[in-house]
Amino acid sequence: MSNPTAAMLVIGDEILSGRTRDSNMHFLAQELTKHGIDLKEVRVVADDAGSIVSATQALRDAYDYVFTSGGIGPTHDDITADCIACAFGVSIGVRDDARAILAERYERMGTELNEARLRMARIPDGARLIDNPVSGAPGFSIGNVHVMAGVPAVFEAMVASVLPQLAGGAPLVSQTVRFDRPEGDIAGPLARLAEEYPALSIGSYPFIQNGAYGANIVIRGSDASLVNEAILKLTALFADGTT
Amino acid sequence: MSNPTAAMLVIGDEILSGRTRDSNMHFLAQELTKHGIDLKEVRVVADDAGSIVSATQALRDAYDYVFTSGGIGPTHDDITADCIACAFGVSIGVRDDARAILAERYERMGTELNEARLRMARIPDGARLIDNPVSGAPGFSIGNVHVMAGVPAVFEAMVASVLPQLAGGAPLVSQTVRFDRPEGDIAGPLARLAEEYPALSIGSYPFIQNGAYGANIVIRGSDASLVNEAILKLTALFADGTT
Repeated sequence: MSNPTAAMLVIGDEILSGRTRDSNMHFLAQELTKHGIDLKEVRVVADDAGSIVSATQALRDAYDYVFTSGGIGPTHDDITADCIACAFGVSIGVRDDARAILAERYERMGTELNEARLRMARIPDGARLIDNPVSGAPGFSIGNVHVMAGVPAVFEAMVASVLPQLAGGAPLVSQTVRFDRPEGDIAGPLARLAEEYPALSIGSYPFIQNGAYGANIVIRGSDASLVNEAILKLTALFADGTT
Repeated sequence: MSNPTAAMLVIGDEILSGRTRDSNMHFLAQELTKHGIDLKEVRVVADDAGSIVSATQALRDAYDYVFTSGGIGPTHDDITADCIACAFGVSIGVRDDARAILAERYERMGTELNEARLRMARIPDGARLIDNPVSGAPGFSIGNVHVMAGVPAVFEAMVASVLPQLAGGAPLVSQTVRFDRPEGDIAGPLARLAEEYPALSIGSYPFIQNGAYGANIVIRGSDASLVNEAILKLTALFADGTT
């Protein structure tokens, strides 16, 4: 009855060095939530073969779906496809269908399909291609692992290609109440409310805004009427301090 | 001779559901890079005891430093301190020094130090407190693990409290050249340059801007003159296509 689970593996030195701020994690998290797939874990690792292989193996064993971003371009530091092949114990080489996609695209653009670009047609044996309507070079799915590009526009297009093919679950219903008072004021009654509704997930997300403390209380569950009931109780508990 | 290594553990359902976009990872990555500490891995896990405990154990065994964010507030879903105690096999309870910090602060503010707020004085045995100049409630360090708040303003203040106490290494020197041409055009010569300079890390970070493809080539290393030499060679290789 519970939703399928997922993990994401973000591959890229540039995220870990602070050079680039990742946006793919936030995008994927939102898309999976809409699709009824529960994102349970994200790992960010460097462009390092050992790290990529061992993270892939750990995550694909633990979750229903794994989504990766980054490291499938034409340059020497793009090693994701080889690492995924290694993690699955399959061979990898330039595949005709992927080569044909690149050849058609580059011919149309008047660009040479050189040796570096041909690296992007290297696909692990047994994988299915993921359509890339933005820049041509495909991603691929093998087993429960979906391998996509790191450039946000391409990553997002690939997610749109893959997601409709995957079984989702019931999208969670979520309602939020904002309290303009510190968490410590509401924590006691909130804990009792959470005990009263074990089927719901009740989270408190504090913030500081213009020097004042507040918290967004988010109640999530698959039963919309139960979420509604708990939200009404929550607002009644603190009728004087919500906005 | 190499720099100390680090991992970050981000704790929070709100990141995984896509409700909140994490900013602490990007902030910490930049601060660690300045301090000569190499961030090697980030994990994001839910507010789930098993996930927090096992990720903490895996990361503290694998890296010199571990930094966590999230889950140390007063509400029922704040379970990080208990999980860290469990990961280290030590007991946890309200500690006098932490309670004194909270009591002093709340008395000054005319706020009740209620049972929920007192949760924030629960500190694993043997931990050292991390100063929180923003909102009082301390973080803590135990072994090589530094436990901090998730609210960005508090997380950033705690990083500023902790980082000067940690041994860093040589900050990496990094230079970037932007190419307004697709990666596939430059990948071949770039790979040969990377082979010529094994002591340097040469990364290619593609982008799409206004529909045109380009890439930032980043060369990093601890030897500034070697980085400079490689950058000069790189620009000479493609003298006609850089900006």
